[in-house]
Parts: sequence; structure tokens; C-alpha cells
Amino acid sequence: MALINISNLTKEYGNHRVLDNVSLTIEENKIYGLLGRNGAGKTTLLNLITNRIFSSGGKVTIDNEDVVENSNVLGKIYFMTEQDLYPEGMKIKDLFKWTKEFYSNFNMDYALSLSNKFGLNVNKKFKELSTGYSSICKIIITLSSGAEVLLFDEPVLGLDANHRDMFYKELVANYIDKPKTIVLSTHIIEEVSEILEKVIIIKNGEVLGNNEVENLLGEAYLVSGSSERVEEYIKGKKCINIDSMAGFKAATIIGKINDENKMQITDLQLETSKVELQKLFIHLTGEEEVK
Amino acid sequence: MALINISNLTKEYGNHRVLDNVSLTIEENKIYGLLGRNGAGKTTLLNLITNRIFSSGGKVTIDNEDVVENSNVLGKIYFMTEQDLYPEGMKIKDLFKWTKEFYSNFNMDYALSLSNKFGLNVNKKFKELSTGYSSICKIIITLSSGAEVLLFDEPVLGLDANHRDMFYKELVANYIDKPKTIVLSTHIIEEVSEILEKVIIIKNGEVLGNNEVENLLGEAYLVSGSSERVEEYIKGKKCINIDSMAGFKAATIIGKINDENKMQITDLQLETSKVELQKLFIHLTGEEEVK
Repeated sequence: MALINISNLTKEYGNHRVLDNVSLTIEENKIYGLLGRNGAGKTTLLNLITNRIFSSGGKVTIDNEDVVENSNVLGKIYFMTEQDLYPEGMKIKDLFKWTKEFYSNFNMDYALSLSNKFGLNVNKKFKELSTGYSSICKIIITLSSGAEVLLFDEPVLGLDANHRDMFYKELVANYIDKPKTIVLSTHIIEEVSEILEKVIIIKNGEVLGNNEVENLLGEAYLVSGSSERVEEYIKGKKCINIDSMAGFKAATIIGKINDENKMQITDLQLETSKVELQKLFIHLTGEEEVK
Repeated sequence: MALINISNLTKEYGNHRVLDNVSLTIEENKIYGLLGRNGAGKTTLLNLITNRIFSSGGKVTIDNEDVVENSNVLGKIYFMTEQDLYPEGMKIKDLFKWTKEFYSNFNMDYALSLSNKFGLNVNKKFKELSTGYSSICKIIITLSSGAEVLLFDEPVLGLDANHRDMFYKELVANYIDKPKTIVLSTHIIEEVSEILEKVIIIKNGEVLGNNEVENLLGEAYLVSGSSERVEEYIKGKKCINIDSMAGFKAATIIGKINDENKMQITDLQLETSKVELQKLFIHLTGEEEVK
């Protein structure tokens, strides 16, 4: 098992509070999305969970043990960071061996087979890789680490659509093979919405919600049909997005569909469907400020 | 107007042929997607169109004038590159002024209003910006340039979902305000599929197609319903992707729906819908090789 408990966690840099009194439970063996805008505090939270930075208050435990300077607990987690913390000038195959020294369950055969699948040349040096292949290399090490908790920070940066698709499929296969606690922090939300069970949304250093994806998506719906009828329907309702195309509109409405709505939808000959997680996220985390 | 004509364009680096005899017309005042996997040759093509590198053969004309060392023609194009080619240490507001010296139609008011909208602090230095804000700054300069041709290479790298959404809306508003030739090279395909009119697909340095998005999407369809019935339907058909969820499947099939298919779809109580551009792209450009 590997249950992560975060209580009253705060992180300040000077006068700037990056994380504000965050309390959160990350249940074992589920796939979480960690969603938030740039600068919301996602990476800070992941850095605190893995004891890479000091908190200004509060604490993180994994299976009830404090993570601070606790190598036993930290060995249960592999964190794929945006930063490259690998030794300079190392070849990828040596990077695999090097990782195995810290993560004894590292699966070398799996790492090599994934490298082949993704077209990663293990004889290259890590620093020679493009942005996309650098992400792929880090993905492979994380998936092969054998850790009970895998944290991914922007794993698909620079990946083309084919490689992103392969990554999502590989992640699910890995999870099915041996369930583990997975946290995916990503900006490409819609693509991962089907593999996430729960979603943690962070806004301005605070947790907006920690919900089942199904529950979250149940808080809104999509209604579509001819433009005038959709316009008629949305009057007086909380519409957060409209997509238009040649006389046709699709509107995202906050709320649940009650009986009155149902009748109106039938009368206006509209269709309803599930809302997109990414559109809901944009609504929940919106509003611009000059930074 | 601004019509781009590319004939028999080839680019080699040593023995490696990055672009292989590409011929292509980019029509004026349309929004194009330039799609291809990492390393397919997209950036090389854009660099050749803007005369930033020498070709190994073939030529590019804009409005029938050769682009090579032709500042008159090159002044019609603004190219948002992944590389940062701005003078060191310049503040963003000074970068705007600097751009106006080369692009006399640069719209300073628009650039400042976009900066405010996106939360970009114009008193910061360009090199101090995060990946996301560096993309935003380059997007703003490109949109404000006043050029007749806007080329975007990976414009949304590092942008969160909200900022990507704002960019797409701003791009469409800019185009509607004054139609121009726009080429978007991006890996986040599904999100832009609704704003593209045509799509150029490059694979291994060759052009796979230059089509209307509608025509391309007409070459495949999605069929969904209960798992067993979808499995029954796809027998003997060219299925390129299956998404599964709790007893439900959605399969992407290559081909058009003929009368026989229609009957089968009705019999099996399946639903059909439009295919996703990104899934079709993954299929068209698939196959891994070790690089």
C-alpha cells in the first residue's frame, strides 16, 4: 500500500505563499490527475511530497510515516520531474543501471523493451536528447522504477501525438499489471480524462477539490443543436462555453439536468452529452491577473 | 494576398535527407495545420519558407517571388519559432518597439492589450519568462506583427489549458478581423481541429497530404455501442483505434459508410459519429523506428 496524507501544508518564498494550508489524502492504488494553471503550486506540492524542499508548515506522511529525511518512505516513490537531475554525460543504458542502485525493483528488461517501443536509443547520452525524447527517457525510468507511487510532472512535454497515445496506453497497462498510486500533473487534460479516477484541482495554492472524475463531470453538461435553439435554451442558465460551427452550437452548462430542463431539451430538439473535463477545468480555474 | 508555392524542395544534412522533394501550395487567407511527428521535417520546412536556412534543391516563392534574400517578400511573413532569436536582456515592451522597426504594421495597442489579457508583465525581461510565458510573448508579437502570413511553430508549448483556449480564440478573432494566411505546426492536434481549414501532413520528410480537414475526416468514422456489438461490427474492417469503458466501445474505422454498413449499424444498434483528427493523424503517421 501507499497512502499519502497531507495536512495543513504551507510553503512560502519570502512574502509569497505558494501553497496555502493544503490538506489532502491521496488514496492508494488510484490514478489521480493533479490539475492547475501554471504557477498554481502543483510542482511545489510534488516537491514537498518527495521531500525535495522544506515546508513552511504542515506535514506529509506516506503510510503514516513522515517523509522528512526518511529514505525508507521516499524509496517507495519515483518522481518524474521537469528538471533533469541525472549525472552529467551519462548514457541512457547507464542511467538505467544507476537508477537500479536506488530502486532495487527497477525492471531492466521492461525499461529496454519500452526504449525499443518508443524508439529511444539507449546508447545516446541523456543530454543529447530532444525535449520529446528527454521526456520519453524519464517516462521509461519512472514506469520501470518498481516504486509503489509514481508522480509525473508534465510527462508529455514535447511529445508528439503518437508518443502521447503510447504513453497513456503503457501507463494503463503498467497499472493493470500491478496497481499503484499514480499522480499525473499535466496541462493536456482532455487526453487523460478517461484514465483518471480522481482529480485534485489546485488554484492559487489552495485545493479547489479532490473528486472522482465522474462526480466532477456530473456537475455540468453539454447541450447541442441548432444555434437559435441552443441560444434559447441557455437563457437564464450558467453557460461557461459555447462552440459554434455553421448553424450549430454546443454549450456547456453548469448544473444538473432537472425535469424542467429535460422537457425543454425535448421541446427544442436538443441533444445532451457529457461535458469535457478540460472545459470544466478552464471554467473552474479561470480569471487572469497580471503576473 | 500571400500565396506560398513550394516546388521540389529538398534539404539534406550530410547523408540525411530531412525534406524530400516537397511540392506544395499554401493558399492565401486560409488557416492551415502543419502536422507531423517529431523529426518529420516541419520546422525545416518553415525555416526554408522564411529563408533561414539554405535548401539543397527546389524553391519557395511567395506571390511568385523567390524568398531567397528577398527582404520585400520576407517582410510579409512573421515566423514564431521555438528558438528565441530576440536580443539578450531586452524588456518585453522594448521587444515590441524593436519588432515595429522591422514590421511597420506592428500594432502596439493590440500587443499591449493582449499582454494585459494574458497576464504578461511587459516590464519583465524576455529571458526571465517561464516556458509558458515565453510562448505567450512570442504569440503576442506574432499576432500583432501585421504580417500577411503568420507561421506558428509549437505555439502552445508550456501553456496551460486556459491560455491555450485564449490563444485559439484570439487567433480566430484576429483572422476574422483581417483574413491572412496562417500555418499552425502543433502536436496538440485535437484542440485545433475545429479552427483549421486545411491540413498538411508530413511524414519522414515527405508530404502525405494537403487536404481540407472535412475531406480528411470523411475518410474514417467512429462507431460506438456495447462492446460485443462493436467487436462484431469491426470484423473484416480496418479498425485503427478502440476506446473501451465499462462494457462500451468506440472504434475508429477507415473508409466511408456504404449502404451495407448502414444496415449493419442499424441491426447492431450502434451509433456513428465523426472521427477525431488526432486519432486519424496517429494512424496515418504511425510506426516506430529506433532513432
